Amino acid sequence: MKNIKTQVGIIGAGPAGLTLAHWLKQHGIESVILENRSREYAQSRVRAGLLEQNTVDIYKKLGLADRLVKEGQEHHGVYLNFDGKRIRVPFGELTGGRNITIYGQQEVVKDLTEAWLAGGGELYFEAEAKQIEGFEGENPKIHFEYAGEKGILTCDFVAACDGFHGIGRKTLPKNSFNEFSITYPFSWLGILANVAPSSEELIYAYHENGFALHSLRSDKVSRLYIQVDNDDHIDNWSDERIWEELSIRLGTKGWKLNSGPIFEKSITPMRSFFTDNMQSGRLFLAGDAAHIVPPTGGKGLNLAVADVKHLVDGFVDFYKNNSMQSLDNYSAIALKRIWRAQDFSNFMTTLFHKQDEHGSFTYHLQKAKFDYISFSKVYATTIAENYVGLPFETFE
Amino acid sequence: MKNIKTQVGIIGAGPAGLTLAHWLKQHGIESVILENRSREYAQSRVRAGLLEQNTVDIYKKLGLADRLVKEGQEHHGVYLNFDGKRIRVPFGELTGGRNITIYGQQEVVKDLTEAWLAGGGELYFEAEAKQIEGFEGENPKIHFEYAGEKGILTCDFVAACDGFHGIGRKTLPKNSFNEFSITYPFSWLGILANVAPSSEELIYAYHENGFALHSLRSDKVSRLYIQVDNDDHIDNWSDERIWEELSIRLGTKGWKLNSGPIFEKSITPMRSFFTDNMQSGRLFLAGDAAHIVPPTGGKGLNLAVADVKHLVDGFVDFYKNNSMQSLDNYSAIALKRIWRAQDFSNFMTTLFHKQDEHGSFTYHLQKAKFDYISFSKVYATTIAENYVGLPFETFE
Repeated sequence: MKNIKTQVGIIGAGPAGLTLAHWLKQHGIESVILENRSREYAQSRVRAGLLEQNTVDIYKKLGLADRLVKEGQEHHGVYLNFDGKRIRVPFGELTGGRNITIYGQQEVVKDLTEAWLAGGGELYFEAEAKQIEGFEGENPKIHFEYAGEKGILTCDFVAACDGFHGIGRKTLPKNSFNEFSITYPFSWLGILANVAPSSEELIYAYHENGFALHSLRSDKVSRLYIQVDNDDHIDNWSDERIWEELSIRLGTKGWKLNSGPIFEKSITPMRSFFTDNMQSGRLFLAGDAAHIVPPTGGKGLNLAVADVKHLVDGFVDFYKNNSMQSLDNYSAIALKRIWRAQDFSNFMTTLFHKQDEHGSFTYHLQKAKFDYISFSKVYATTIAENYVGLPFETFE
Repeated sequence: MKNIKTQVGIIGAGPAGLTLAHWLKQHGIESVILENRSREYAQSRVRAGLLEQNTVDIYKKLGLADRLVKEGQEHHGVYLNFDGKRIRVPFGELTGGRNITIYGQQEVVKDLTEAWLAGGGELYFEAEAKQIEGFEGENPKIHFEYAGEKGILTCDFVAACDGFHGIGRKTLPKNSFNEFSITYPFSWLGILANVAPSSEELIYAYHENGFALHSLRSDKVSRLYIQVDNDDHIDNWSDERIWEELSIRLGTKGWKLNSGPIFEKSITPMRSFFTDNMQSGRLFLAGDAAHIVPPTGGKGLNLAVADVKHLVDGFVDFYKNNSMQSLDNYSAIALKRIWRAQDFSNFMTTLFHKQDEHGSFTYHLQKAKFDYISFSKVYATTIAENYVGLPFETFE
């Protein structure tokens, strides 16, 4: 029987849990992390890799951005295609210098894990949280299994950063929240390929064949996506067919798509999910445990980090001023940004995906929005300010 | 047999036809108007009464704005309610001084009709256009009936400003255009009441009971609307019930709705309609003949006037430079604004109407947009710039 005590018990060593642990440490608050997967698995999960300005600034402030700054690519704008016409939305220019940085989520996890362990932080891999109890009182306990043994992590607070399938949300009292979700009628076929990116910035494209996205992982690795039907299968997509389709959908005059060896391909459904309450007593949810956005807006990781920011504010207020006020307000303040992100992600998704027949009423509304971005500085700025992430002050 | 000759034969003495006639006259171009209804009928059709800055400026330039300036009410902003919270979008402040003017469409028609006849303009009421022929050549003819007699209006060009049910669009070659339409799953119950407006500016409201709009006709007449189901019936709505419901939906702390005698009430379905081509040879459509927008954005009359602006540019180019170039480009240039207006009207409609259960995912996206308007100056400016009307240069 393993018994541990700490101030904040964290379930999950993804971006939310790790960022929370580091940030609390900076304020002198102790935490212990339980992660049900192995270190190798946790560090290799391929996820989005788009960091908002807020997120980059936080990692810099926490002293965790050395490799991010060196290897991450700061993007000052994004390309948008519609029916083969390409425009660019310049971020910094429209938002007073705020930008995004492309840096894989698994790299963030690697950096944060390494730094946490190097600093003597407690983090148990393959430690499965089984039950959270007593969170309505002052000494919640997380029951877990680790190396074949049962254990208890006793703490002042539990932060469930344990993802969509974690026990955190399942533990919230049923009558304390509502869940909402929509599944989009299309999926993304995503590939990773050993080829230099064909564009220095991302390209979102609406084409009559469907959506495509040109993204990248590094100078040598391209990340590309195409819209497919929900019932499509990866076996229908040979590498040749994928490159041909990408080339058609992303195509624009005088621009050429580089192709190369594909080393990963998979199909992912597109959905939005959220709960309208992220806390109960001394149990708090952060990140994917509380919300999923379609990847179109690049918001997933950034929302997790923003949740953590509000949690840290709350814990600091508690340990410094013995006040639950900020913590009690956690859900309300986090949800403001989450809703903005849900709406923006939905906007970007419906704007660039084929939703109805090419040439339909819906298509023309999509095209009207694209044209509007192309000539209205204020409309383009709404894209830019959401994309780079609204400042924290906005919601406080 | 009545035979008339002119340069531009205009079908319809609504805002589009009358504005076109006056504007052409200013350029020394002759026109004759055929209107199938009586003068009394044409002048009493109750329609929207929201004039964009562009529209007001045009009537001023044409010397037709004396009464409009005296009796119209310039509004410098609009109120938006959501769940009882009220915010204001200031127009002039966000758009460099552009505003809207509330002045009934039937008043515009009265002023333009009077001025046209006073200036010796030819306008035949109860003259029904039956057929348009020869518009692929240089001498199109409009066959009509007037006072029991058949007649022919021979002209260089035909401007079909004859509304959604007119013969203009029906005469366009079937293979030259596509039609698009959507019907919204709700209608507007609109009333006119002898009571001073309860607000100096319009109020759009989302409420869990449904949409409501507070508008006005004058200092003494209020115009109000509430969302009802498409299969609802006016008999279900006593005056008492209407006022009670308006009071609930528009309600906000410290504000009171004035009620008074209702002298008109009716239910109107909400729809969007357009064609993607507005011309063939020497036949041109303008206004409702080519497009219908839901009234939520206040765009109907203004789109008609914008069409006319482009038509006038075309006719002037033709008679001055003997060039069809601008006229050939009419449809393409007019459609840019029409699409913007369709999208904006759809945006305002879906933002403030109850579309799904209160508290649903859709509801939360609507609320997220409302909240975004409340704190983002650029997003609020997109509402303002669309509402007051984008300058003509934008689309040229």
